[in-house]
Amino acid sequence: MSDVTPLDKVGEFGLIRRIQQTVQLHQPSTILGIGDDAAILAPTAGQEVVVSTDLLVEGVHFDLTFCPLKHLGYKAVAVNVSDVAAMNALPTQIVVALSVPSRFSVEAVEELYEGIRLACEAYNVDLVGGDTTGSRSGLTIGITALGTAEAGKAVRRSGAGPNDLLCVTGDLGGAYLGLQVLEREKQAWQADPETQPELSKYPYVLQRQLRPEARMDVVHELRDLGVVPTSMIDISDGLASEVLHLCAASGTGARVFTENLPIANPTLEVAEEFNLDPIMCMLNGGEDYELLFTVPLSAHDKIKNHPDITIIGHMVEKSEGANLITKAGQPVPLRAQGFNHFDH
Amino acid sequence: MSDVTPLDKVGEFGLIRRIQQTVQLHQPSTILGIGDDAAILAPTAGQEVVVSTDLLVEGVHFDLTFCPLKHLGYKAVAVNVSDVAAMNALPTQIVVALSVPSRFSVEAVEELYEGIRLACEAYNVDLVGGDTTGSRSGLTIGITALGTAEAGKAVRRSGAGPNDLLCVTGDLGGAYLGLQVLEREKQAWQADPETQPELSKYPYVLQRQLRPEARMDVVHELRDLGVVPTSMIDISDGLASEVLHLCAASGTGARVFTENLPIANPTLEVAEEFNLDPIMCMLNGGEDYELLFTVPLSAHDKIKNHPDITIIGHMVEKSEGANLITKAGQPVPLRAQGFNHFDH
Repeated sequence: MSDVTPLDKVGEFGLIRRIQQTVQLHQPSTILGIGDDAAILAPTAGQEVVVSTDLLVEGVHFDLTFCPLKHLGYKAVAVNVSDVAAMNALPTQIVVALSVPSRFSVEAVEELYEGIRLACEAYNVDLVGGDTTGSRSGLTIGITALGTAEAGKAVRRSGAGPNDLLCVTGDLGGAYLGLQVLEREKQAWQADPETQPELSKYPYVLQRQLRPEARMDVVHELRDLGVVPTSMIDISDGLASEVLHLCAASGTGARVFTENLPIANPTLEVAEEFNLDPIMCMLNGGEDYELLFTVPLSAHDKIKNHPDITIIGHMVEKSEGANLITKAGQPVPLRAQGFNHFDH
Repeated sequence: MSDVTPLDKVGEFGLIRRIQQTVQLHQPSTILGIGDDAAILAPTAGQEVVVSTDLLVEGVHFDLTFCPLKHLGYKAVAVNVSDVAAMNALPTQIVVALSVPSRFSVEAVEELYEGIRLACEAYNVDLVGGDTTGSRSGLTIGITALGTAEAGKAVRRSGAGPNDLLCVTGDLGGAYLGLQVLEREKQAWQADPETQPELSKYPYVLQRQLRPEARMDVVHELRDLGVVPTSMIDISDGLASEVLHLCAASGTGARVFTENLPIANPTLEVAEEFNLDPIMCMLNGGEDYELLFTVPLSAHDKIKNHPDITIIGHMVEKSEGANLITKAGQPVPLRAQGFNHFDH
């Protein structure tokens, strides 16, 4: 590459100045952004603030062999915004903490920040602060997102009641199958570096893995429909794990009907190619960053034909447990098999 | 050790539950803490919110050979609270993002959290959320701190004017000399593992390095005195670097008088033992987490005899530059020589 500037040439302050120049602030609540000891925000009266933090760690959450830095920056923001969305809140600001190996160039860090900037634009979020430091090993991206909701209106995991409808946005399993494709191609490439990776055949699942979107669109649409979920969570670890979280927090059970689970055709095709059970991919794949939520039965008419929402089941009394109901009507206890990041 | 539980035995959710049980919430603005997709906060009407984030990275900011985990947890909170203090704001909540190598035991993570808990208690801050994940390499601790200040009353770096008095809290250079002691003893131990480290002779500088305090006490005292700084920053990179930050942000120069710089006797003794210039240790050592601030001349009488505050100089017109004034009255341009974490 021709334009490569070593990080130690510009230093931390030089890097901050370069990043600061690309930042635009849009939120009226942002009083002071990057450049002081802390950002200053002025929350609107009558609004509550939601706060969520997520770390993305090289070798655990991403592999730079196949994850472009711009996508990674975008994804790091999206997964945090997704947590804000899961509170039925609107994202307002983020702060970004980066630990960057010295093998990175200034241009590589700027590429990462370009993804962060694009996501900030897409979700109407202000980047208001951060910390950029070295790393002895891999890249780590820590983002804390702030959002806002009318006082008392943030939606928790704990508000579901028996008979509430259980809904999911979009479709499931794609991000997991995207990862399978990437890992297969990486192995092929490691075995024979002359191989060209076969990626162009899989645009849908790759995009689901590399550049997921937070479902802010659905948060806005639910508001427009006047539907307030009784509980909500985003799907990071896998549908089964998240259903169990809602049940545990709400003190309910749940019935999830396998034949209702939404899967996209390209996802189904990749599952077949990999001989993987599509139901298992949807239940345990994780990283889809769709929203899982419950609404009162009375909201049924408003959401039953919504193109981005699928009713996959309903909540029941706690004593009944959380079950998957097969096509044949058989209940199978739901089990969490999400990632265990400690289990290497 | 007898009680060692591997991390993968309890998993991320098990760990979160264990941590959650030790958390107590005190801030009236905390509506919902750990356990949902995001925490919910209710800022007081008329108050602004300040936000700051900091990463501590193993091998860059700390060395587990000589840094006890409980102290590390405490320090991680203190350095973030210090950023809130530097805005003249009061800390209210933190979120903690941890990336933990699998070699760590559950007990080790709990030890780290015990330090975090102690700091939360000391600074009256609520731990309201976090993310705990694996790491392929070292330990990384990312903390985001929130604080509160009356609307329009947060103190920035940019408000100093010529003739404002330049003040510093506590004393300087200790944290840097503590690091020198630790590194010397580590080298001795690496050369001969039978050596007992000589640490008991250096309690003051070691405590400055391993367990610094944020100067919230001074923030409260300034309020009690009715003194509002015109600009403020905390000393993380070193006094020289921070004076230059205040000057750059405020559009001023500064005069810092060497004979006014505060150093503690134990720090001075260690500097002599290591043949290091105490002035250089105070100017460039860093990590003291004292506050550097300016006040109007009119505040002179209120602070001149304050035991925790030293007037080290004053601001001047920008054209005069930022200079250290030696005992002989000679001006020497101040230069930032803080850590460059990218420069390994």
